[in-house]
Amino acid sequence: MTSQPSPQLWIYDTTLRDGAQREGLSLSLEDKLRIARQLDQLGVPFIEGGWPGANPKDVQFFWQIKEAPLAQAEVVAFCFTRRPGRTAATDPMLQPLLAAGTHWVTIVGKSWDLHVTEGLKTTLAENLAMIQDTIAYLRSQERRVIYDAEHWFDGYKHNPDYAIETLETAIAAGAEWLVLCDTNGGTLPHEISQIVREVKQRLRERRVAQNADFHAPLPPLGIHTHNDTEMAVANAIAAVMEGAQMVQGTINGYGERCGNANLCSLIPNLQLKLGYSCLPPEKLTTLTQLSRYVSEVVNLAPDDHAPYVGLSAFAHKGGLHVSAVERNPITYEHIQPELVGNNRRIVISDQAGLSNILAKARSLGIELDPQDPTYRQILQHLKNLEHEGYQFEAAEASFELLMREALGQRQPPFELKSWQVHYHMMPDTDPSQSLSLATVKLAVDGQDILEAAEGNGPVSALDTALRKALVNFYPEIESFYLTDYKVRILDGGSGTSAKTRVLIESSNGYQRWTTVGVSTNILQASYQAVVEGLEYGLLLQHQAKVPLTTST
Amino acid sequence: MTSQPSPQLWIYDTTLRDGAQREGLSLSLEDKLRIARQLDQLGVPFIEGGWPGANPKDVQFFWQIKEAPLAQAEVVAFCFTRRPGRTAATDPMLQPLLAAGTHWVTIVGKSWDLHVTEGLKTTLAENLAMIQDTIAYLRSQERRVIYDAEHWFDGYKHNPDYAIETLETAIAAGAEWLVLCDTNGGTLPHEISQIVREVKQRLRERRVAQNADFHAPLPPLGIHTHNDTEMAVANAIAAVMEGAQMVQGTINGYGERCGNANLCSLIPNLQLKLGYSCLPPEKLTTLTQLSRYVSEVVNLAPDDHAPYVGLSAFAHKGGLHVSAVERNPITYEHIQPELVGNNRRIVISDQAGLSNILAKARSLGIELDPQDPTYRQILQHLKNLEHEGYQFEAAEASFELLMREALGQRQPPFELKSWQVHYHMMPDTDPSQSLSLATVKLAVDGQDILEAAEGNGPVSALDTALRKALVNFYPEIESFYLTDYKVRILDGGSGTSAKTRVLIESSNGYQRWTTVGVSTNILQASYQAVVEGLEYGLLLQHQAKVPLTTST
Repeated sequence: MTSQPSPQLWIYDTTLRDGAQREGLSLSLEDKLRIARQLDQLGVPFIEGGWPGANPKDVQFFWQIKEAPLAQAEVVAFCFTRRPGRTAATDPMLQPLLAAGTHWVTIVGKSWDLHVTEGLKTTLAENLAMIQDTIAYLRSQERRVIYDAEHWFDGYKHNPDYAIETLETAIAAGAEWLVLCDTNGGTLPHEISQIVREVKQRLRERRVAQNADFHAPLPPLGIHTHNDTEMAVANAIAAVMEGAQMVQGTINGYGERCGNANLCSLIPNLQLKLGYSCLPPEKLTTLTQLSRYVSEVVNLAPDDHAPYVGLSAFAHKGGLHVSAVERNPITYEHIQPELVGNNRRIVISDQAGLSNILAKARSLGIELDPQDPTYRQILQHLKNLEHEGYQFEAAEASFELLMREALGQRQPPFELKSWQVHYHMMPDTDPSQSLSLATVKLAVDGQDILEAAEGNGPVSALDTALRKALVNFYPEIESFYLTDYKVRILDGGSGTSAKTRVLIESSNGYQRWTTVGVSTNILQASYQAVVEGLEYGLLLQHQAKVPLTTST
Repeated sequence: MTSQPSPQLWIYDTTLRDGAQREGLSLSLEDKLRIARQLDQLGVPFIEGGWPGANPKDVQFFWQIKEAPLAQAEVVAFCFTRRPGRTAATDPMLQPLLAAGTHWVTIVGKSWDLHVTEGLKTTLAENLAMIQDTIAYLRSQERRVIYDAEHWFDGYKHNPDYAIETLETAIAAGAEWLVLCDTNGGTLPHEISQIVREVKQRLRERRVAQNADFHAPLPPLGIHTHNDTEMAVANAIAAVMEGAQMVQGTINGYGERCGNANLCSLIPNLQLKLGYSCLPPEKLTTLTQLSRYVSEVVNLAPDDHAPYVGLSAFAHKGGLHVSAVERNPITYEHIQPELVGNNRRIVISDQAGLSNILAKARSLGIELDPQDPTYRQILQHLKNLEHEGYQFEAAEASFELLMREALGQRQPPFELKSWQVHYHMMPDTDPSQSLSLATVKLAVDGQDILEAAEGNGPVSALDTALRKALVNFYPEIESFYLTDYKVRILDGGSGTSAKTRVLIESSNGYQRWTTVGVSTNILQASYQAVVEGLEYGLLLQHQAKVPLTTST
């Protein structure tokens, strides 16, 4: 039986540019690079990296990408059309765009006459010249151009003829994609359907009317939607069903105001429900992991109720319903959770927990026997800890130490006796001059050690004191360093008594590992994570990673 | 000019029943009553109060409502059809339904043959009898019945004839509404449109075929959607556009898995965009307040990025754009925020130019003269601070204090002399037993005060010590409490020496304000945010918010 090939769609990710506009979200250069690499792994063909003409940080981003290119994705640099009254070749805003050195660039032009006259304060004719000039110039510099028709749907509603003129201008100048943007986010799906249909019709008609000169097919359409009516995803789908072949969105729907189209909902809808080909199928199963990774990098709590990728997306509460869903999943699940890398969760019973532990242990080289009582102890202990706020998803080193402990195979490199931290903010002193003082008392191989150290902050002082205390016994500690330190308040509504979770990522120069600590005392939580980080680093160095077994 | 009357839609709120299924959400009786009263105020015609047959708490709810009835809304009690093999009159599950004493009841019946045979383990014929018997019985007890056709769309796709039979049965038994439920949440808008259209067609055809006996019009259709594809709102609208006259949803989209249709998006879409009449227009302007009220009652953080009602829904960043939106709002806003009781917000960020500062100050009652050198100083100072990591977007109280300081109008309520924090983790002690000790030394009105306090963590201890020190001078401090505490490591790669930004949200019971602190020392950053929080709270209390001026 021959099957129809799935029609292909191009995913254009703008998490790093439009997504970064979300209030309160601020991406460092390293954050952007990390996310870009993960998107590249996912198989996303276009990654909008930033606006180098407006953001110096983005200039660096594109430079880094040139130095260490991505495996498959095209990184795209973003800009607006040249300013009125200039030429593209002399508009300083476009030079950084070229300097970014990308193959593809995205140019945004005005489609709505009101924006041209009231916003830019120029003429309708000049706006067309701006579009033409900018795109033609970039083509002359051997860039491939994606044209974003800003405020498309509002513009088309107010003055369809002018809007079409702007598109025609972009086509004539050499744009290879025409992306219709619902910039204000207020358009409804049936309007999107109608307008996209009309646009295709009108462009075809004009082509026929203009006859001879145009032998090239029309550039394909793309769609860029916002969530101001809670229909960004529905709007994108409406456009695709009328023939749009590119969808622009962000991971987790990040973006200004109410966000951009959420790719984590859009891609599964398009691929699993509507049969389009967006990503290689095996890549779609990494979507949930990617969603959570990105939320960690940007330090935003993941949305547990997000469609497809949320923790609760396939959560079932107890009773009759649960037996039914296990016997016949389609009765209660609209897709198989594994297709997007998620799991079914049974909220009342332990069932989901058991399979998670098994899978996790297996990934560490441990084959646990579900009949073995140790296994159930591990599970219970883990559930207790997770209930307290520990999160082992992101802290695999701590998880492994936990399992080793339960299997009687953990050998802490030292015994902690006590530690103290003291910070004194002195009167009439620059607060940054006041250092924290930490003292630690440990026993290593039966020998007592007392060390003290100062640091910028209490955690820094503690970390330094611990290393001082241990480095004579474990010189390799000198090669360990912290590469990331994250703090999350678990129940902010409890104010300063809130439980704090600290995640620390450590490195020895060639391996990285993450550990976790939880406490209502941020120093205690940090201490825990720091100490486990050191312990795990030593474990890696000392043992030729002997696989764990359940034989005790 | 005569205008078309707006077609009416009936809003059916199930926040208290389906919404309460959200993982982690637990409503007390008082919570439910409070929310019900607010929904009644909003003008919602149907409020599904609960499932008295399954939840004893709901029995109490309905009893309380009988004692103190709502002003206009119909409170509806929910239940499933009788069990197989029983009679409705003798099924104990239905008695509490009647005891609830509501005029209206909602009965859920199986539409999908698979659920009947695999889930209920009974015959297709018995299921029809269950539907008929239950509705007829309730009619005989003078209840008006809304019929919820569970798993309607999946059921119709799998066996349309049987699904239609279940509806016909409900109609014949006297149901006054037929609500089509997308229980698994996996249906797409175009499928909803098609199926609703077909249902109406088939019901009409069967009526014609059955001829003589049916003189009453068909009961109207309703729609009940879930957000598993992020299209609950779009799906509801698709159904309405095919003639559904009731929409079921929840406030803030609360519900199990990915939630129910969000009424806070659905109602403005239907009323403001599509011209339906859902609520009295003056009631629509209370929507934002209601959304936040409900999130307060259920103790969930409001979604700042929610369409229409979110804090960021009408937030504007960046220079040129802001001037444009103030001159001509439709260029950048899809509706007037005030129509749903929301406001435009001008967001301060380091991308912001001069116009943002002006607009921000204006919103605080300050008219700044761009020519005034103070103004440029403020801008420069702001940019410097933001470069160091301060984020005023989310910390408007700190921003205001900053402006007051620059204008020579800041009067700190006390002078800090010094403070200390000490934490000692004792040997062989449960770490949670080790308390932090903080000491603060201040001067208030020239009087020196030294106070000490303990706390779970160092920040908690510091906060407590500060309050102890100040409460005798400023008794109103007693009414302040922290509602949120956020920590962000700004450059995690610097490990434990990383710069830390702390955001603290405080409340006095009716107002909320956010303050910020930045330092490489987390205690110092927290201290800063806590102290500014107290200062701002006192400012609110003491001054009848005298508008700031640039005259110094």
